[in-house]
Amino acid sequence: MTTGDLAAAAREFAAAELTDHRYFDGLPDVPMPQSKALAQAGLANWWVPTEYGGAGVSLVSGVDIVSELSYGDAGFAFTSYLSILGATMLHLYGTDELRTRLLTELARGGGVCATLASEEAAGSELGRTGTTSTRRGGAVIVNGDKYFATNTDLAEFLVVVTRAAEDDLDYRTVVIPRDTPGIRVVRRWDVIGMRGSATYEVRLRNCRVPAENVLRGNGIRVLEAGLNASRILIATTSVGLARRVRDEAMAYAEHKVVKGAPLTENAVFAAKLGQIEMHVEVMRNQCLAAAAEFDRMMAGPDPAGEFLRAGSTRSALAAKMICGQSGWAVAGIGSELFGGLGYTHEHVIGKLTRELRWTSLVEGGDDVMRDLLYTRYVVPPAKRR
Amino acid sequence: MTTGDLAAAAREFAAAELTDHRYFDGLPDVPMPQSKALAQAGLANWWVPTEYGGAGVSLVSGVDIVSELSYGDAGFAFTSYLSILGATMLHLYGTDELRTRLLTELARGGGVCATLASEEAAGSELGRTGTTSTRRGGAVIVNGDKYFATNTDLAEFLVVVTRAAEDDLDYRTVVIPRDTPGIRVVRRWDVIGMRGSATYEVRLRNCRVPAENVLRGNGIRVLEAGLNASRILIATTSVGLARRVRDEAMAYAEHKVVKGAPLTENAVFAAKLGQIEMHVEVMRNQCLAAAAEFDRMMAGPDPAGEFLRAGSTRSALAAKMICGQSGWAVAGIGSELFGGLGYTHEHVIGKLTRELRWTSLVEGGDDVMRDLLYTRYVVPPAKRR
Amino acid sequence: MTTGDLAAAAREFAAAELTDHRYFDGLPDVPMPQSKALAQAGLANWWVPTEYGGAGVSLVSGVDIVSELSYGDAGFAFTSYLSILGATMLHLYGTDELRTRLLTELARGGGVCATLASEEAAGSELGRTGTTSTRRGGAVIVNGDKYFATNTDLAEFLVVVTRAAEDDLDYRTVVIPRDTPGIRVVRRWDVIGMRGSATYEVRLRNCRVPAENVLRGNGIRVLEAGLNASRILIATTSVGLARRVRDEAMAYAEHKVVKGAPLTENAVFAAKLGQIEMHVEVMRNQCLAAAAEFDRMMAGPDPAGEFLRAGSTRSALAAKMICGQSGWAVAGIGSELFGGLGYTHEHVIGKLTRELRWTSLVEGGDDVMRDLLYTRYVVPPAKRR
Amino acid sequence: MTTGDLAAAAREFAAAELTDHRYFDGLPDVPMPQSKALAQAGLANWWVPTEYGGAGVSLVSGVDIVSELSYGDAGFAFTSYLSILGATMLHLYGTDELRTRLLTELARGGGVCATLASEEAAGSELGRTGTTSTRRGGAVIVNGDKYFATNTDLAEFLVVVTRAAEDDLDYRTVVIPRDTPGIRVVRRWDVIGMRGSATYEVRLRNCRVPAENVLRGNGIRVLEAGLNASRILIATTSVGLARRVRDEAMAYAEHKVVKGAPLTENAVFAAKLGQIEMHVEVMRNQCLAAAAEFDRMMAGPDPAGEFLRAGSTRSALAAKMICGQSGWAVAGIGSELFGGLGYTHEHVIGKLTRELRWTSLVEGGDDVMRDLLYTRYVVPPAKRR
Repeated sequence: MTTGDLAAAAREFAAAELTDHRYFDGLPDVPMPQSKALAQAGLANWWVPTEYGGAGVSLVSGVDIVSELSYGDAGFAFTSYLSILGATMLHLYGTDELRTRLLTELARGGGVCATLASEEAAGSELGRTGTTSTRRGGAVIVNGDKYFATNTDLAEFLVVVTRAAEDDLDYRTVVIPRDTPGIRVVRRWDVIGMRGSATYEVRLRNCRVPAENVLRGNGIRVLEAGLNASRILIATTSVGLARRVRDEAMAYAEHKVVKGAPLTENAVFAAKLGQIEMHVEVMRNQCLAAAAEFDRMMAGPDPAGEFLRAGSTRSALAAKMICGQSGWAVAGIGSELFGGLGYTHEHVIGKLTRELRWTSLVEGGDDVMRDLLYTRYVVPPAKRR
Repeated sequence: MTTGDLAAAAREFAAAELTDHRYFDGLPDVPMPQSKALAQAGLANWWVPTEYGGAGVSLVSGVDIVSELSYGDAGFAFTSYLSILGATMLHLYGTDELRTRLLTELARGGGVCATLASEEAAGSELGRTGTTSTRRGGAVIVNGDKYFATNTDLAEFLVVVTRAAEDDLDYRTVVIPRDTPGIRVVRRWDVIGMRGSATYEVRLRNCRVPAENVLRGNGIRVLEAGLNASRILIATTSVGLARRVRDEAMAYAEHKVVKGAPLTENAVFAAKLGQIEMHVEVMRNQCLAAAAEFDRMMAGPDPAGEFLRAGSTRSALAAKMICGQSGWAVAGIGSELFGGLGYTHEHVIGKLTRELRWTSLVEGGDDVMRDLLYTRYVVPPAKRR
Repeated sequence: MTTGDLAAAAREFAAAELTDHRYFDGLPDVPMPQSKALAQAGLANWWVPTEYGGAGVSLVSGVDIVSELSYGDAGFAFTSYLSILGATMLHLYGTDELRTRLLTELARGGGVCATLASEEAAGSELGRTGTTSTRRGGAVIVNGDKYFATNTDLAEFLVVVTRAAEDDLDYRTVVIPRDTPGIRVVRRWDVIGMRGSATYEVRLRNCRVPAENVLRGNGIRVLEAGLNASRILIATTSVGLARRVRDEAMAYAEHKVVKGAPLTENAVFAAKLGQIEMHVEVMRNQCLAAAAEFDRMMAGPDPAGEFLRAGSTRSALAAKMICGQSGWAVAGIGSELFGGLGYTHEHVIGKLTRELRWTSLVEGGDDVMRDLLYTRYVVPPAKRR
Repeated sequence: MTTGDLAAAAREFAAAELTDHRYFDGLPDVPMPQSKALAQAGLANWWVPTEYGGAGVSLVSGVDIVSELSYGDAGFAFTSYLSILGATMLHLYGTDELRTRLLTELARGGGVCATLASEEAAGSELGRTGTTSTRRGGAVIVNGDKYFATNTDLAEFLVVVTRAAEDDLDYRTVVIPRDTPGIRVVRRWDVIGMRGSATYEVRLRNCRVPAENVLRGNGIRVLEAGLNASRILIATTSVGLARRVRDEAMAYAEHKVVKGAPLTENAVFAAKLGQIEMHVEVMRNQCLAAAAEFDRMMAGPDPAGEFLRAGSTRSALAAKMICGQSGWAVAGIGSELFGGLGYTHEHVIGKLTRELRWTSLVEGGDDVMRDLLYTRYVVPPAKRR
């Protein structure tokens, strides 16, 4: 399928399978039947490289796929694309055997993997990671508690950020199959939005895996490499949500009469929708630009090395920020458009508003983004552009 | 009790009775047991004039009472003060017998009244009211459907905005006892916040009341008179909510370590809290100023006439706007402060954010407020100040 | 004159004397002839207490006076009211002889005084003040350089914040008559707005005054006491400027045709003006509330002690912040309303925009305000309200 | 030269020739000597297609050229690129002879052309254009007054939007050599920023040109085609200005000590710069995306027809809007960073702030942009994406 075909398929899928906002807002059991349908539609794990039997769809093409799925249900979309985070790390820094085996499995089975990074005390300060990994002969043993870990319970394997027990300043990313003894899902979080996804608190006790399951490179930089992909798609989620707000507003306005005319003819309403359209356009282009930079780096001669050097890309940081901020602005405009009805669960706008909040919170809040942009791209004069 | 005593009592009441955010966020059955406790604490219907046996607390004093109750639970607070809307209309424009009887009852029993204005098609455009009142001998018969009507099911009486069947351009406000035949509560709305209050869709069929139950004056201006009081308290609700956000943030930050120090010592956090404190101070003072203007008009020689001439006061319109807008800004800052936990129902911030949205939506959205400010206070040069 | 009379007189004065925006925007020589006219109109130094022969107008009443003068020209207004800063310090912390002599002079002559606090390196961090005062017998000798000091060249006397040469941690505020040898005005700043006022860089070399000219109390706290008054009036300046933007917009819109109708009938324009009107109302009420708190403290049994304990009041800090921020929002809306003409010096809006920027910058930027609000009024739980 | 080379050359040129902010802010005489230097550096009219002997640099490449020049002086940059507006119209809709002759001239001589569209009464409502063109034999005679017309006095030729005298609903774009009798420059506007450019009020009286000088197609759509190019570069101007604000802030902060450390190490400052960096990145990418769409359309089989059908592109409208709005946000942040110095003409920030205002005002304000986005890209469901 071409890029356009994939986006059209995603749009069709969303319209057919994801329209029931009360179902997805109800914290449905996972895996949801829609996940299987997604795989059947050829839309699961579209980003797995062809070398593992995947479709090898570029991140640029993925932007519109994710936008369409998020238009239907952002939580479901999140569940469907988040594996790109762990898979990117595995692809870049895993041994040949490990990455081939696990990514081929993801491509074939349409399953998911989970990345376990955040902890209760450390929050998103990865330098304070308390989960440890200890080398013991040819094995590595992982112990710790992870706070917010999406998809864990349904994952094929976990990618876990740990501190090396032997060296406080060394971080290791360890791949742990889901059926490894010692993994306990403590609870599923009762999140306020994105309820079509499933995020867990997880306990790891003496989880033993072969030393080959440790990814190459400093664990935090390895994670940053993968975060570029997931942050761009998280940003894209807001594009889909904002488009949905726009279309819901138009659908409402066509039948709503204000001052004797359909709301669609009201100049103040038009100004608000024009502003929303601007945001949608700008958000999408920033996601596309960040995805293009990611694709370009991935297509280079040494992507693993380049990502270790670059860490978080400017464009991905900016994408998550603008989509979080502009998305929230769209939520602000949108959540005022539907009168009293918009303050009830009859209408989807309450859900969209909660979900547009999320982009600024997940995988590092805006304070973290600003800090990274400043220290990495403003302070060094050579990095400015 | 003095003003300070009342506010302190409200604070104490809130701390003792309103702290369980999951209870109030769960759409509890009404009347809630806390309503009775409120009356026992002497905090129910504090605004009923002394001539009816009420406490005759001024609106200025009411601001801090409502702020404290809203700090505890904004929905519960709303239920507790909203009767001021219908009661103000009744006090100013009812016959001596009617107002004395009903307001004495409110003062004594601590019950509530409901105002039925908005309709499905008309929204908040009162000029399009479809509910009719027909004079028939010494009676008036009311027919129509009202869309969002808080407190209806538990009210002692309803104050209903209607169009005169005999004259399309005349509006009548009619007082209808709750036990009048023909009133049917169609449903309680499943609102997205303020779930400690109860708002209903209501059907009125051939509700017959004596002609004395029609309030004096054009029904829309009569409603505007009362809206001054309720809009100021709705604005005040955001003051309480914003104060709660501030205090929740400080409670969280004291125990949260970021970059090796408590979050309370973080300069970026401090800047956000300083900004919130500014908003709280400004919102409160605007509510106080609007309340003072209301109290002043009410204490004048002809409040009924003055309110009919003035309609919506500038200060009340501005209070609702700034508290809606600044409250939403506080929600925007606050909802980013609590990390992942803030995106779960474990924490109260999600509820506070949804409730800070409400002030801009209820009793006329900001578009309506801006329109009123412009046409009433900007266009006529003499009204500018 | 009553409060209303004074405001009306100020309005009349502004209309008669301050309408020529190109004159005031041209960095006119000072003292301007309008200063004399202001004194003749009885509007100079209205705040001097009656005990010194002044009009003893309260700060609450002063708000509308300053708003009206600022409506005419904000720079001129600033020059006219800024003496309240030094005079408040002198009134509260000067010896009987000193304050009586100098404030009587201000009341009689309509002259000005200047406060010299900011320095090039220290900026608004007063703790880093480099200007020193050295006790030598019954005298004090002041040395240092002050960076931004309004009114210095035309002042009767200067109030100078210094560090005690004998104790690095002690600060002294010293009153220095303008004709004291050693005062040199280095330059008048070519400011980007408020050009109807005059701000100077000043050099002080061995300026010797009697020890009685040192004000009682820690110099920084003494300054903070006075800043309450001036910050409130600086905030008020934005009220006048915002009102001017509103009225200029209406004057323009009456004659401008857009889509076949006067711009005044355009719904999007109306929404913008409604928003501006809200800001004007809220800004004014915050200034009034802060002024009322100031007046209340001043009327208490021990204002000197109370201000030393309180330092910057919450209401004054919030007033400066909201008027800076909302004023800037009004500038943002206003500066887009006048088409291409608004981007030329033909129209006053460019000047108003530059001047609406000023309130957030002068006497401590918003970062300083937020910091003070946080440390003084948020961190101590007992200070929250 | 490659794209990167051109951008580097522009950066070098800006550093060498455009650093003196007081010169450019002083409304310098035109043509400025720097214009000749620009041509010598090979940076004049880079966009002229190769078929006319130009460099044929794409608009995508032009984005960084314009950003660099605007970093130096936005007004000068504007003068240097604005000819793209008239030239695009001429290229697409002029006769072979006319376009070849005039565009070859622009490529060779480095001169400019001017587009005359706005009028005093009509503002940017082109439908109300009062300037007429009358066919008289093989000639066309133009009469009217144009209000804001940049570069007119120094132009080789003018492209004038007129109403057909014979048909009120038909608009004609007419090319008029600058030396045609009847052109009178009434005045140069004393603009509040962008003073390195020259904008004029112009009177056209019986300007007679051959009928071949009328461009093909409806005059308003023809203008819209050209506006796509100029609006994208106007947007880009804000990218350069915002980058300049960032770098000025860093230069200042390196030497400014706050709380005992360089301001560059201050967390609140860092957060502001991180936010600015995000804006810069997003603005630039939107300009690039809009430029890419323009280049794509221009490279298609029938650009003249496609632009007539498309009119204003969504991406160009959004680019001007986001760069106007985000640029203004950057101005808001930036203009608070420099303390008192930033409020004087010593520092460039005042100029940058005034110039960041401009993008939202020129070639259609944001109200016009929102209106176009709404009616063209939101109302028709098929146009949404």
